[in-house]
Amino acid sequence: GVPRIVLLPGDGIGPEVMAAATEVLAAVGTFDLAEHPIGADAIRAYGVPLADRTLAACAEADAVLLGAVGAGAVGAGAVGAGAGAAGSAGAGAPHDAPRPEQGVLDLRSGLGVYANLRPVRTMPGITHLSALRTDRAADVDLVVVRELTGGIYYGPRGDVRDMPGEGVPRPAGDGPARRAVFDTCVYSADEIERVARTAFELARERARPGRPPRVTSVDKANVLTTSRLWREVVQEVADRDFGDVVLDHLLVDTAAMLLVTDPGRFDVILTENMFGDILSDETAAIIGSLGCLASASLTGLGAGGGLFEPVHGSAPDIAGKGVANPVGMILSVALMLRFGLRMAEVANAVEAAVQNALAAGTRTPDLGGDATTTQMTNAIVKSL
Amino acid sequence: GVPRIVLLPGDGIGPEVMAAATEVLAAVGTFDLAEHPIGADAIRAYGVPLADRTLAACAEADAVLLGAVGAGAVGAGAVGAGAGAAGSAGAGAPHDAPRPEQGVLDLRSGLGVYANLRPVRTMPGITHLSALRTDRAADVDLVVVRELTGGIYYGPRGDVRDMPGEGVPRPAGDGPARRAVFDTCVYSADEIERVARTAFELARERARPGRPPRVTSVDKANVLTTSRLWREVVQEVADRDFGDVVLDHLLVDTAAMLLVTDPGRFDVILTENMFGDILSDETAAIIGSLGCLASASLTGLGAGGGLFEPVHGSAPDIAGKGVANPVGMILSVALMLRFGLRMAEVANAVEAAVQNALAAGTRTPDLGGDATTTQMTNAIVKSL
Ligand SMILES: CC(C)[C@H](C(=O)O)[C@@H](O)C(=O)O
Ligand SMILES: CC(C)[C@H](C(=O)O)[C@@H](O)C(=O)O
Repeated sequence: GVPRIVLLPGDGIGPEVMAAATEVLAAVGTFDLAEHPIGADAIRAYGVPLADRTLAACAEADAVLLGAVGAGAVGAGAVGAGAGAAGSAGAGAPHDAPRPEQGVLDLRSGLGVYANLRPVRTMPGITHLSALRTDRAADVDLVVVRELTGGIYYGPRGDVRDMPGEGVPRPAGDGPARRAVFDTCVYSADEIERVARTAFELARERARPGRPPRVTSVDKANVLTTSRLWREVVQEVADRDFGDVVLDHLLVDTAAMLLVTDPGRFDVILTENMFGDILSDETAAIIGSLGCLASASLTGLGAGGGLFEPVHGSAPDIAGKGVANPVGMILSVALMLRFGLRMAEVANAVEAAVQNALAAGTRTPDLGGDATTTQMTNAIVKSL
Repeated sequence: GVPRIVLLPGDGIGPEVMAAATEVLAAVGTFDLAEHPIGADAIRAYGVPLADRTLAACAEADAVLLGAVGAGAVGAGAVGAGAGAAGSAGAGAPHDAPRPEQGVLDLRSGLGVYANLRPVRTMPGITHLSALRTDRAADVDLVVVRELTGGIYYGPRGDVRDMPGEGVPRPAGDGPARRAVFDTCVYSADEIERVARTAFELARERARPGRPPRVTSVDKANVLTTSRLWREVVQEVADRDFGDVVLDHLLVDTAAMLLVTDPGRFDVILTENMFGDILSDETAAIIGSLGCLASASLTGLGAGGGLFEPVHGSAPDIAGKGVANPVGMILSVALMLRFGLRMAEVANAVEAAVQNALAAGTRTPDLGGDATTTQMTNAIVKSL
């Protein structure tokens, strides 16, 4: 049948890059598209950043495409209006105003897409944008596999007065009681095992003659209890079922340094939710543009379905100007075709078209050019 | 009187770089030095990574110099032998074998050195080592101010069965109960306020004509409750007492990217413990060498005293070979002279001597040269 895809354009430049995605989809096949609001857009429409009906539509679809969410300044986030995220709202939180980002977090956990894949590859045509010296940035081809539905993003949180148990730090000094709050990072062996399997399977798929499958697991096992379990389980899974995969473990601080000094050493990077958020944005500096990065959020490598979104945010500073870079969104469409809909050949064609358009010199302002979103999209569609 | 300094050489290359530190101290003045073990060295001597008598000696001293701690491979950390860190040991943790790193964590909290300063400056003579393009790496002059005695490093942790309260995630699936563990990130307004003050005061000290004081506070306020309190308190302190300081807030993922694409935009970076660990190691890529970075851990900017250590680890792979880079340790001595002992002029002289020795071409193997630790140290002492 015709694949049913839910489109969630969202906020800021989200609708502009989503329009680019639908152009590409129209050019490569027939799809049944249904649009729903998310984020600030959904708060305006329904009073919540992710309505039940939207989540239900996403759960029934063959795949979900997301634009971007967030009403604040780029990189600035929203603050002050903070109810706790998933779980108990903090007693210390002043209001219960809904936050747009909560829509994305609820969508990820609602769909159970625990494995977030973020591929980073040197792109011909824009290598001069890299912040790194040419010798460091050449031939980078890695994927960050980030655990997406657990960890400190989803654990209990709130006011410390609501956190029972011994050993709870209290504010220092003898002064009047002041605010103190907490977040909790929780991981079970099962949560770690399933995302580790995804990473190992992906490494196998990426192996080529002369390049054996390789996974680098990143944690903070010298400090965190969750990281010690992480390292233990990842190693167990490798020993039991993936003896062919070369596995190493790095501390997150070391990994943050090596990603810049020696990005070519990485193939598949496996890590937990918070570390993956930080490290995957850091990889944007390698190729020089956050606007070109795509992501796939899956319930396993061969499961089909899933959530596909660019790594960039809603970029309110350039929203409505028609100059947003659609490459991250279009490459997310390619990931959807590959992992969500099992149309690998069409996915290859879309990726090749993006490379060609960039190599031919069509570039949006963030890439140093003056193409509009429409011109960039047209150049890609024409290369198909 | 003669300043009393406790020396904690520690593990791996720690004793080798500590020897370099004592050479420099002997060349610039008279100090009362007392050596104690820490880390794996202390576990061998006393069965614990930080003995009570060692902490007491540190607390009584005018300043503490630390080499490095850790018996594992560089960047690999220790695992498996994990009791929980400060607070309850996890029921899920198999043994109670002491970990060397715990000595550093206990020392930091025992001394109450809540503000960790990590300066990063382009160094003449080694600019070619930077992983960044020349235009990006030039004229970098920033300091990471990392909160050091709170956050997820010190919160309650262990098995989730010991974590009371509602909303506790359980392992997915119907299978037999498997391991699940947690770490807690806790921050009080007081803890945030005092380290924010240190950052703002440091920014004022660093201000020069044409460069107003500037602080970038880094958090994850769009997700974490602790980060929302962080942002709120930092902004309150700025509004109340530091109206002259230019303050902006960045999300940690954005900051991780901007540190590479545009490090020159930063002056003082203020952040919490875990984010500071990651971001400060990332800055090593800017100057191209972890071995050249120094740190000061203080109980406030004008408080005197404190703990001074290089940012690098124990580097067991090169330990005992006499080739460790002593620059991070010697620059930590300079920070001790400046912040711990209020000997700013001597501190300036040591920093100038390091610059001169590097510019003259004396370099250890990590910097692309073939100087031994002793030769590098002698070159610096001679430049004094
Ligand atoms: C918007 C925000 C909640 C989100 C995250 O932190 O996961 C974003 O930074 C991302 O990486 O997709
Ligand atoms: C050794 C380790 C516990 C320590 C930390 O994480 O703080 C180190 O990485 C550092 O940055 O000083």
